[in-house]
Amino acid sequence: MVVEIISIGEELLIGKVVNTNASWIAKRMMEMGLKVRRIITVGDDIDEIVSAIQDSIRRGAKIIVTTGGLGPTFDDKTMEAISKATNRPLKLENEVLMEIEEKLRKRGRKLSEAAKKMAYVPEGSKIIHNNIGTAPGIILDYNNAKIIALPGVPEEMENMFETEVVKMIKFEGKFQETEFLIYNVTESELAQTIIELMREIPSIYIKSHPIISTEDKISLKLHIYSTSYDEESWRKIIDEIRNKIIGKHNYCEIRGI
Amino acid sequence: MVVEIISIGEELLIGKVVNTNASWIAKRMMEMGLKVRRIITVGDDIDEIVSAIQDSIRRGAKIIVTTGGLGPTFDDKTMEAISKATNRPLKLENEVLMEIEEKLRKRGRKLSEAAKKMAYVPEGSKIIHNNIGTAPGIILDYNNAKIIALPGVPEEMENMFETEVVKMIKFEGKFQETEFLIYNVTESELAQTIIELMREIPSIYIKSHPIISTEDKISLKLHIYSTSYDEESWRKIIDEIRNKIIGKHNYCEIRGI
Repeated sequence: MVVEIISIGEELLIGKVVNTNASWIAKRMMEMGLKVRRIITVGDDIDEIVSAIQDSIRRGAKIIVTTGGLGPTFDDKTMEAISKATNRPLKLENEVLMEIEEKLRKRGRKLSEAAKKMAYVPEGSKIIHNNIGTAPGIILDYNNAKIIALPGVPEEMENMFETEVVKMIKFEGKFQETEFLIYNVTESELAQTIIELMREIPSIYIKSHPIISTEDKISLKLHIYSTSYDEESWRKIIDEIRNKIIGKHNYCEIRGI
Repeated sequence: MVVEIISIGEELLIGKVVNTNASWIAKRMMEMGLKVRRIITVGDDIDEIVSAIQDSIRRGAKIIVTTGGLGPTFDDKTMEAISKATNRPLKLENEVLMEIEEKLRKRGRKLSEAAKKMAYVPEGSKIIHNNIGTAPGIILDYNNAKIIALPGVPEEMENMFETEVVKMIKFEGKFQETEFLIYNVTESELAQTIIELMREIPSIYIKSHPIISTEDKISLKLHIYSTSYDEESWRKIIDEIRNKIIGKHNYCEIRGI
């Protein structure tokens, strides 16, 4: 099942905010056995958001998670963009409107036109309530895809993901990962061994990262992961990988497992 | 001039690594008066990288910066993808090959087939030397666009950006930004005032962010920026914004300017 994330907000495009929301969602998806295929970051521009959503649908994404652009201000355009991209007109949700009014009343505020805007969602949306902030999210089924719109404030996004989104994602495996350090071998030397390991062991992914160290000793970090094994078989696989590396590169030193 | 960033690497799609490279580049571009329009993150998949590059060109991007995928391992596919996307065959660069060999020799290593791969770049590329690591980057002119390929290791990417990329980016303005906190006013209440300010003052952008605080006092952070003013006129603009907000919402309190 193809998952794509669309991160929305000018602050991401000027380097003001690092996109930790996308990493957080990607990690949670992996833990549930689903891998994100693409992350697209656009600004608060309705045409850009519409085009990003339509591109994701065209590429066959089955789950499209957007973050950001759900608030009351003029530059919060996500609902309008989803409405435009899916041809589902915006509709006032009375229940949401009452919730927003109630939240504002508690803070001694009246409902403004801007706040009222947050109660308009594309027709057919399932509302995701926001226990922390004001703007609700939605889940909208469209052409075999689920479009999930969450706020950009991390606390709100994470809370809504954990309470609502996880319920509708089909568990497809168990995420396993192991990391260790290898000294005295270059990435180039190890490349062929990694290719062979990935050919021999089904559904694993091995990634090597060079570590810059002040000593002149070469070191690499190996990150191995899969969504297809239980804990016991994963331990066996890690042993197999370790033995193969030592067998082919007996001059190297492995630490951390 | 439209700038897009393509971040390449599985580690970004599984939430293992937060995409700080994209934020860093976006911020540096802003400081040079250029705004990034879109950031696309894809994995180490040649078809995905090719499609991301071709999409950016089709959308009219004039500067396309890729990060990641330049190393010696099997999953470093950026050069091959740029070659495919631009129809410029990969060509062995002898000077680069000698540099790589020399770097390896200093570390007591021989040139492997995997390391040799890093010396192949799309025909017509200008080489960006890597003073820290081994893999070189490139700048390739293609159909009125500049494709700039940089490594994924932040220290290497930043060094190559500062030494080579900045030379070819046309300075288009001066980035100014100011941030302050406003208490006792909601985002909704302020929305109309922000719209008016952005209409009245040319080329400024104002973004409000709600701040979650343990006290029950509502607070917002306002972030104001532009690439069109010098310092003195910027100070006047900030005063104008401050006065307008106080004038329309005299119950609020502004801190930090």
